[in-house]
Amino acid sequence: MADFDLVIRRARCATAADVFEADIGIRGGVIVALGSSLPAGHEEIDAAGRWVLPGGIDGHCHLDQPTSDGSRMADDFLTGTRSAACGGTTTVLPFALQMKGQSLRAAVENYHRRAEGKASIDYAFHLIVTDPTPEVLSEELPSLIREGYTSFKIYMTYDDLKLADREFIDVLAVAREHGALVMVHAENADCIAWLTERLLARGHTASRYHATARPMLVEREATHRAIAYAELVDVPILIVHVSGREAVEQVRWAHSHGLRIYAETCPQYLFLTAEDLGITDDDHQGAKCICSPPPRDRANQQLVWDGLESGVFQIFSSDHAPFTFAGPEGKFAAGENASFDRIPNGIPGLETRLALLFSHGVETGRLTIQQFVALTATNVARMYGLYPRKGSIAVGADADLVIWETDIDRRIGNADLHHAVDYTPYEGIPVSAWPALTLSRGEVVWQDGEYLGVAGRGHFLRCDLPEPARPKARPEAGHTWSV
Amino acid sequence: MADFDLVIRRARCATAADVFEADIGIRGGVIVALGSSLPAGHEEIDAAGRWVLPGGIDGHCHLDQPTSDGSRMADDFLTGTRSAACGGTTTVLPFALQMKGQSLRAAVENYHRRAEGKASIDYAFHLIVTDPTPEVLSEELPSLIREGYTSFKIYMTYDDLKLADREFIDVLAVAREHGALVMVHAENADCIAWLTERLLARGHTASRYHATARPMLVEREATHRAIAYAELVDVPILIVHVSGREAVEQVRWAHSHGLRIYAETCPQYLFLTAEDLGITDDDHQGAKCICSPPPRDRANQQLVWDGLESGVFQIFSSDHAPFTFAGPEGKFAAGENASFDRIPNGIPGLETRLALLFSHGVETGRLTIQQFVALTATNVARMYGLYPRKGSIAVGADADLVIWETDIDRRIGNADLHHAVDYTPYEGIPVSAWPALTLSRGEVVWQDGEYLGVAGRGHFLRCDLPEPARPKARPEAGHTWSV
Amino acid sequence: MADFDLVIRRARCATAADVFEADIGIRGGVIVALGSSLPAGHEEIDAAGRWVLPGGIDGHCHLDQPTSDGSRMADDFLTGTRSAACGGTTTVLPFALQMKGQSLRAAVENYHRRAEGKASIDYAFHLIVTDPTPEVLSEELPSLIREGYTSFKIYMTYDDLKLADREFIDVLAVAREHGALVMVHAENADCIAWLTERLLARGHTASRYHATARPMLVEREATHRAIAYAELVDVPILIVHVSGREAVEQVRWAHSHGLRIYAETCPQYLFLTAEDLGITDDDHQGAKCICSPPPRDRANQQLVWDGLESGVFQIFSSDHAPFTFAGPEGKFAAGENASFDRIPNGIPGLETRLALLFSHGVETGRLTIQQFVALTATNVARMYGLYPRKGSIAVGADADLVIWETDIDRRIGNADLHHAVDYTPYEGIPVSAWPALTLSRGEVVWQDGEYLGVAGRGHFLRCDLPEPARPKARPEAGHTWSV
Amino acid sequence: MADFDLVIRRARCATAADVFEADIGIRGGVIVALGSSLPAGHEEIDAAGRWVLPGGIDGHCHLDQPTSDGSRMADDFLTGTRSAACGGTTTVLPFALQMKGQSLRAAVENYHRRAEGKASIDYAFHLIVTDPTPEVLSEELPSLIREGYTSFKIYMTYDDLKLADREFIDVLAVAREHGALVMVHAENADCIAWLTERLLARGHTASRYHATARPMLVEREATHRAIAYAELVDVPILIVHVSGREAVEQVRWAHSHGLRIYAETCPQYLFLTAEDLGITDDDHQGAKCICSPPPRDRANQQLVWDGLESGVFQIFSSDHAPFTFAGPEGKFAAGENASFDRIPNGIPGLETRLALLFSHGVETGRLTIQQFVALTATNVARMYGLYPRKGSIAVGADADLVIWETDIDRRIGNADLHHAVDYTPYEGIPVSAWPALTLSRGEVVWQDGEYLGVAGRGHFLRCDLPEPARPKARPEAGHTWSV
Repeated sequence: MADFDLVIRRARCATAADVFEADIGIRGGVIVALGSSLPAGHEEIDAAGRWVLPGGIDGHCHLDQPTSDGSRMADDFLTGTRSAACGGTTTVLPFALQMKGQSLRAAVENYHRRAEGKASIDYAFHLIVTDPTPEVLSEELPSLIREGYTSFKIYMTYDDLKLADREFIDVLAVAREHGALVMVHAENADCIAWLTERLLARGHTASRYHATARPMLVEREATHRAIAYAELVDVPILIVHVSGREAVEQVRWAHSHGLRIYAETCPQYLFLTAEDLGITDDDHQGAKCICSPPPRDRANQQLVWDGLESGVFQIFSSDHAPFTFAGPEGKFAAGENASFDRIPNGIPGLETRLALLFSHGVETGRLTIQQFVALTATNVARMYGLYPRKGSIAVGADADLVIWETDIDRRIGNADLHHAVDYTPYEGIPVSAWPALTLSRGEVVWQDGEYLGVAGRGHFLRCDLPEPARPKARPEAGHTWSV
Repeated sequence: MADFDLVIRRARCATAADVFEADIGIRGGVIVALGSSLPAGHEEIDAAGRWVLPGGIDGHCHLDQPTSDGSRMADDFLTGTRSAACGGTTTVLPFALQMKGQSLRAAVENYHRRAEGKASIDYAFHLIVTDPTPEVLSEELPSLIREGYTSFKIYMTYDDLKLADREFIDVLAVAREHGALVMVHAENADCIAWLTERLLARGHTASRYHATARPMLVEREATHRAIAYAELVDVPILIVHVSGREAVEQVRWAHSHGLRIYAETCPQYLFLTAEDLGITDDDHQGAKCICSPPPRDRANQQLVWDGLESGVFQIFSSDHAPFTFAGPEGKFAAGENASFDRIPNGIPGLETRLALLFSHGVETGRLTIQQFVALTATNVARMYGLYPRKGSIAVGADADLVIWETDIDRRIGNADLHHAVDYTPYEGIPVSAWPALTLSRGEVVWQDGEYLGVAGRGHFLRCDLPEPARPKARPEAGHTWSV
Repeated sequence: MADFDLVIRRARCATAADVFEADIGIRGGVIVALGSSLPAGHEEIDAAGRWVLPGGIDGHCHLDQPTSDGSRMADDFLTGTRSAACGGTTTVLPFALQMKGQSLRAAVENYHRRAEGKASIDYAFHLIVTDPTPEVLSEELPSLIREGYTSFKIYMTYDDLKLADREFIDVLAVAREHGALVMVHAENADCIAWLTERLLARGHTASRYHATARPMLVEREATHRAIAYAELVDVPILIVHVSGREAVEQVRWAHSHGLRIYAETCPQYLFLTAEDLGITDDDHQGAKCICSPPPRDRANQQLVWDGLESGVFQIFSSDHAPFTFAGPEGKFAAGENASFDRIPNGIPGLETRLALLFSHGVETGRLTIQQFVALTATNVARMYGLYPRKGSIAVGADADLVIWETDIDRRIGNADLHHAVDYTPYEGIPVSAWPALTLSRGEVVWQDGEYLGVAGRGHFLRCDLPEPARPKARPEAGHTWSV
Repeated sequence: MADFDLVIRRARCATAADVFEADIGIRGGVIVALGSSLPAGHEEIDAAGRWVLPGGIDGHCHLDQPTSDGSRMADDFLTGTRSAACGGTTTVLPFALQMKGQSLRAAVENYHRRAEGKASIDYAFHLIVTDPTPEVLSEELPSLIREGYTSFKIYMTYDDLKLADREFIDVLAVAREHGALVMVHAENADCIAWLTERLLARGHTASRYHATARPMLVEREATHRAIAYAELVDVPILIVHVSGREAVEQVRWAHSHGLRIYAETCPQYLFLTAEDLGITDDDHQGAKCICSPPPRDRANQQLVWDGLESGVFQIFSSDHAPFTFAGPEGKFAAGENASFDRIPNGIPGLETRLALLFSHGVETGRLTIQQFVALTATNVARMYGLYPRKGSIAVGADADLVIWETDIDRRIGNADLHHAVDYTPYEGIPVSAWPALTLSRGEVVWQDGEYLGVAGRGHFLRCDLPEPARPKARPEAGHTWSV
């Protein structure tokens, strides 16, 4: 019992369900005791009644992911995990991307090479399936699932990524059979293409037309379709980066019909609006906020907040997709005057995710501290098979912990961040809380404004089968599967 | 004023709005006067206080339409219009089918040749667009619309017919630009294919699995998608043959969001259930009721009745698609033991449509007589550009009229019908009303159980632009179009 | 056939279903012939291709109705029917109000005396039931229904009018048993009282707080409750003056569940907003627009337009409730500085109803001409048992007709109106059409800007049983009734 | 750290969020440590890898509550808490009932006397407010809230309990001002009375007509109304004992509109149907299952299960309301042939609540173990201000714990239960799990089938302000409150 490597004293702990004050005893990077008055450890940290929360798990971020349009992601595993740690995130789940024609296993191996020696916190991989050949469906996916790659993302848009509908269904069937979880980027490719062509034909090339080309119906339709396919195959799915009312209503509809449809939202849908893509055609700065689906308006922000509170969303991720604003491989890789459709989609957000939600969610009373923990850590771990090792403050869990400083009065500024991107879309937004100290498996990686991480110390994590992926025990829902 | 060719005395007339008793004065095939005591005509018919209603317009029927699976439609324009007239229908709108690779104009010309000299009542053509090449979109469709082919149907399923989603959108854009109306067969092809493969792999080949392969979600998804595309392009569409709850809810959703989405239903969704496709695997008779979407269950029948009453549906059509049960070109053209997916989809219904709805709708109090007229005649004429020549009892309209006999006590029997099909799916269903006399442009084509039509007397009708096809005068709805 | 008192030539007629050009032959105040070339009449009017529509029926207006707060209605049957005729309305249905403690029959007799010798157009009575004693329920209502008073209104708010919930249910049961139709003013009295008390306690007495005291939830709740009671008793009801989204959604819900719930809206919900009640506390002019429910905002206006188009509403009425702005018996009868809750509720609108809807509905393409006729005349006649005598252009119907002048360019001004109110809430709103000539039973009552009506020529109309009042032929819906 | 009174070894713990294996160190009735290998305690229990869960909190049960119809509740605090403990429940929240005319404080004092010396586990009181006089609203409630009575229930039905709507609103306003939580029994009294009168008049007096008299619309209407009032006052409420689809849809509607509406359901809505009230008129046994709202049908059971899974419900309670079947003060207190409306409403369920949900929820995969803990303990504690002392396994919490035995094969039988009722409505339902041991503040009260509780050892708990009672931080929602 005794012989702790480290004891955190007087921690005001929160889990996804509970709040308690305790000392936290850590040994071998693992929480081994919680108690009201633990024996001394080799090292001690006095949390002095501050919130001590599970380290954030970012279930949706892109690091060093290959692109095909001349751009390059600014963050690799080194800068990405550094930025994460400085923002209180202790586990990341980026994506091993299969390029069309490529073997999925090759994609995974390639991605491991990109991570090697760089990560300062732990990481697992989602797969992106873009080419579900019979080989992929019957051999690679099942064996990769067994090896710890248990969640995969599929795209309904982007020419180089998207699946045909039948492929979508086939991937779901594999997920159902082997217990994996499919994440869905739900936007209708044909609507976007049709609108984009019309916009470009009229000379509407500015950044702000990115939002015009992707109205909410584009997201609603694809969300409805994805839900229908999940219902057909009788398997849970997760709709990623839900942006506002129309997709939210589809998710609520699914819940009211007893379907296991999970949903994620992101900071951009709480803190940005379509106006951040530019108010005029001359506003090139708008490219900084180009991401898909695009941010909507204030009424939709409120609706997404309501969804966080009332249980529409299980997961809050950054969808960090880092491109520099300046430079030849950034937002304007296709040229200074590139039309909106040639600007890489994505914004950085790994480091700011937690502080934004804590400041504007918990401290305003919109969310309880337990909801914060659930959305940013526990649910992510459970959803992606990292639980109970990650995602909570509990005996036996990794000592991935964050001590929060609250009552601060600061504005987000890119100069203070640790990613390799030359801007943040959240510049100037006030935050009232920020991690004072981040522990990864009991080791301090961020303290008092200083990054203390070591490249390569992060471990790759094999994921167990995701918790929600079991089909429902309902005779009526299983009818199509049993045919 | 005087000098009527024919006067119908003491007619208890109903239009889509009104009920009145009047004499009807007809000259040159046209209604020229309605009055309380008209002068004598050259001929007279005493309606004796019976209902005199506008002749039915069947807005959805297939006659002599080419097939590609070895089957052949049993009814051509001769037997089809004969059957129609005997059932009180005085105008039919079958489909000129473009085969993939074929010019649309060639399809129209071919179809005119099939109709020539055969029709005993008037007819117009819908187009079926299966191959929207740039030529079709920019040349053929616009000129055909100008020439009176103003409605076209597109399919979301059937391999030889279905459009890709982008093609669907492109056809809608043409419809919007030129004021035509697009009819949509809304079923998701990929879901059907996936389920069918699974069923066949398990040896589930019997007729009844046709319903298993097309659950309501298949229809719901496609309906939602079609509505989204109509919203995108800002153009009304008509969803044909809506079968039950899940598609109905989509249509209602569209209405509650201010979208002009029209909907049709058919007798099979009021009078048949999935059980009519067979209760056991040995039940080959079930093939007689194979049509798509398949009939559902009794609760859905009630829901469709409610939709007829409350305005979800504007049109009630037969979707007559005639294949014999016996014979080498019928339901088992692909072999005696053909699996359900190789049995031609479609059931006959031209002749029974009106009597079924009158008997079970009007005489039970579910529908008013005006709703009956609207659903079976007036709305059809307005929706497809045949109004005011067709579809009502009004000065200036063609004298297409039906005098109804009510208070009869009969059961539908195929022996009494006039199509060329060897069965009716409605065999044995009681009817309490049937047309006693049918007038087409003032000429008697059916009277007292005798068919009096003359092949070739039917006129081809050029359609005006459909009434509902105008986009809504709403600034907000037009946003995507104006981009 | 010949010997017409009057023939209207070249009339471009519209009914609720049809459009046709015809001559209209009138004899004895009744339409006796419609024809393409009728014989000469004693008098002739050349409509010259103008729209000739059924005279408007105002199914909801208050004339000379007793009040209990010191105010007095400005219009009696003389000025009210004059104003109506000048605006193209040929039948009015005001309310015989039972005061608490009063016999319903006495109320009816009293109201007949108020009408006698004054009306220049035909009229029928709705009843307002405020005191449903056993005598009223078991004796007076049944006998009055038999005598032609077949619709009654009940209030869910206003202290001197409102029924307890159990009384509401009891009145519905009488309506069901005898086939009458209940109209419901749906606002929650307790919510209004609670909010009003809070507002007054804070000194918020200005007109604009009338809207604050009656937010949409007040109307939504009462609408839901009224629908539940109608479902309980299994009887259709009509929700009057629906103002916007929340009540509309309740009505749509009822339709989607197979319930016969009818709904009315009024010009104030298309043309006014809550801002017309005043922007500041000093804005006394706002009292001119105080009515209940209060007008909402522009988004709700659009939603009500959508509801008119898509069939949520069957009836469009004025809810004319005339109080002068100035004068001791008008809006400030309770004193110059009367708080909002002491200002009589109601606005004038009899004369402007049709021109507003025609100009902004038909001429903008939002509504078809047939929908206009249905909403303003045919449906009203059918709903309240005046059909087929009133409400259409058909052989046998009363010659209540309006020839419309279109393409005018005018703004509504109170100086041009014929009611006895010193203002119109629609002052300055442009109209592009106005009745050129109004016929009541074949007699001209308004022509070329001149009122030609004669007090006392209007007939009282006994109403038949309302058409929709029959319960549905549905076994499941009838369960509570059959208990 | 050391010096534990008791250590539970190898506990497989679950909280509302987490699952972990740990030793649990208890001192002074409180959990003081959780660790992977704690020092020895004075006593030790080996949980041997079994589930150790927080003791159940029954947030809705009636014990020794005065009645006014001649019946008497069978369970007082002695037998009630005994039964609870034997079923794994360690805290109960019964109701201090104000009778009309009575002071609320007097009711509370009286209820304390009833509890004194009897309870073997801890307990808190809800209040039932039946007579919200100005004194009650402005004096008694505020002071009682301060003293730890922070939740009160109001009734919308039952003549001796129900509030007028204005009283309902006034109580909500007090709750908002002082931070209390209002629980609502939502059934429409007038509908029930009307239906009951009709049923009795037709001689339909049997138990099964209890369900006929309370169809779902009765519950739906009241639920909608309650939500509207909560929206008006801008305060959260909790809808108790939700029975099925129609009320569930109202709760979902509220969630989708950003309202804080909480909901509870009970075992009777998962395990009973209306058929349990009797199939024939002779079935007196049906009285055993008379409770309100009545159980519905199997489809509704599934829907309630879905609601438990997807977050419609926060709380799962027994609504234990114990009346004997036999005897002069039980179900037939009003006579052997008492009609259904004179049979006391309520069924026993304290002891069976947890085992039923565990067996049919957790072990079937419908619910996770964390959801079970949340629904039966943690959420209840948080909702009613008992958290963090009660409701979880955490450092600092009371050692109210249950060690579960699973893999049992047993059927519920009243002979095995410890309440004072002579039947259980769940007789014969199989359970696969049951508490092996129950600890209340570290003391064993139930072990291996033996009740070890001591009357009077239970403490009264003052409740803090309920967690959810804070209004939402939304400007728009607060509008009515700020008027």
